[in-house]
Amino acid sequence: MANHVRSIPDKVVGRLSLYRSLLQDHAPENVTHLFSHDLARMARVSAAQVRRDLMDTGYIGSPNKGYEIKKLVGCISRILDNPECENVALIGVGHLGRAIIDYFQGRRSNLCIVAAFDNNPSKVNRIVQGVKAYPISQLQEIVENEKINTAIVAVPGNAAQGVADQLVQAGIRGILNLAPTPLYVPENIYLVEQDMTMSLEKVAYFARRSFNKKGSKNE
Amino acid sequence: MANHVRSIPDKVVGRLSLYRSLLQDHAPENVTHLFSHDLARMARVSAAQVRRDLMDTGYIGSPNKGYEIKKLVGCISRILDNPECENVALIGVGHLGRAIIDYFQGRRSNLCIVAAFDNNPSKVNRIVQGVKAYPISQLQEIVENEKINTAIVAVPGNAAQGVADQLVQAGIRGILNLAPTPLYVPENIYLVEQDMTMSLEKVAYFARRSFNKKGSKNE
Repeated sequence: MANHVRSIPDKVVGRLSLYRSLLQDHAPENVTHLFSHDLARMARVSAAQVRRDLMDTGYIGSPNKGYEIKKLVGCISRILDNPECENVALIGVGHLGRAIIDYFQGRRSNLCIVAAFDNNPSKVNRIVQGVKAYPISQLQEIVENEKINTAIVAVPGNAAQGVADQLVQAGIRGILNLAPTPLYVPENIYLVEQDMTMSLEKVAYFARRSFNKKGSKNE
Repeated sequence: MANHVRSIPDKVVGRLSLYRSLLQDHAPENVTHLFSHDLARMARVSAAQVRRDLMDTGYIGSPNKGYEIKKLVGCISRILDNPECENVALIGVGHLGRAIIDYFQGRRSNLCIVAAFDNNPSKVNRIVQGVKAYPISQLQEIVENEKINTAIVAVPGNAAQGVADQLVQAGIRGILNLAPTPLYVPENIYLVEQDMTMSLEKVAYFARRSFNKKGSKNE
């Protein structure tokens, strides 16, 4: 069933996803083609990097006209997307969970949040922004029935590891962790962690240094 | 005013933030000291990496007892934190914005979201989960009065660049971008982008490959 024999490296997959989103949402109107240096500028990488990454799609642009945007989006999608909709589970239906449902609804991605889970009885057995919310006790059953490989963890930090263990148990293969705590999962589970505290502390550190260096905020 | 003459690299600042959060929230109870290999295991890096990173704090642990947790947290905080509270602005008071307020409230970090902004009249001139929300037209004034260096962008993708331009204009030095679109800012602005779509597409890609490779989800 796999489309590609060899695995594309992690960072390339990330950039292909970025290129597609830029091509879909940020290409100038009425433009049908662009060159690697155009896409490079939009993605803030080098043109050589864009050309190397796009080799994985098998699509080679024309030397005169560059890449046809529509065709390139199609080639990237053949790599990134499941031919059918990719079913995703969301764990945690607080503000963050709702923000995530908002975020993915109506986007052109074929990632579909098909089920949400929470352990708060007042949040489950109902539809939250178009997504059915279940008690966590039904996780295994729904993951199997809906053929879900991928989950987003959006629960408080102290609940995250317990949830991750249940996800692994239920057969989930990939986790995006948005809880403010690192997770421990078996090696065969693909895990991406997005820690907002760490990111914000970095931003604040460098923002303050820049402020201090200049001596004044409005130099 | 700067505590340190030389700038600590980007990735080290990120790991110091991670170490602190692990030490504060995940150190075993009744444990006062730990060794670099303990922290390394928690942070999933090598012990040599931990020791190198911690050299920047100026604190050298004891060969017999390791690092004293309380002292180490203090040393990391002296690097990462503004001695006073670090005032942060949040732009966008939708679900994502509210999730961010939740996320940082009650955490031990000294990052304080002191003002939120939105262009929806129904969301401003009131207190949202403890944070005063203002119309975006007051951005410049509040950023100056509250001495805000750092901002979090949590608006829809099509509004993000306009907001970023206003933040730069208002004197902001660092931006954490959570909107699903890359931002263009001057070079002297420190920018971190957390694109959930890109992360989730990566997770789904590798989750699916692992699924396909094994032939069955429940092998």
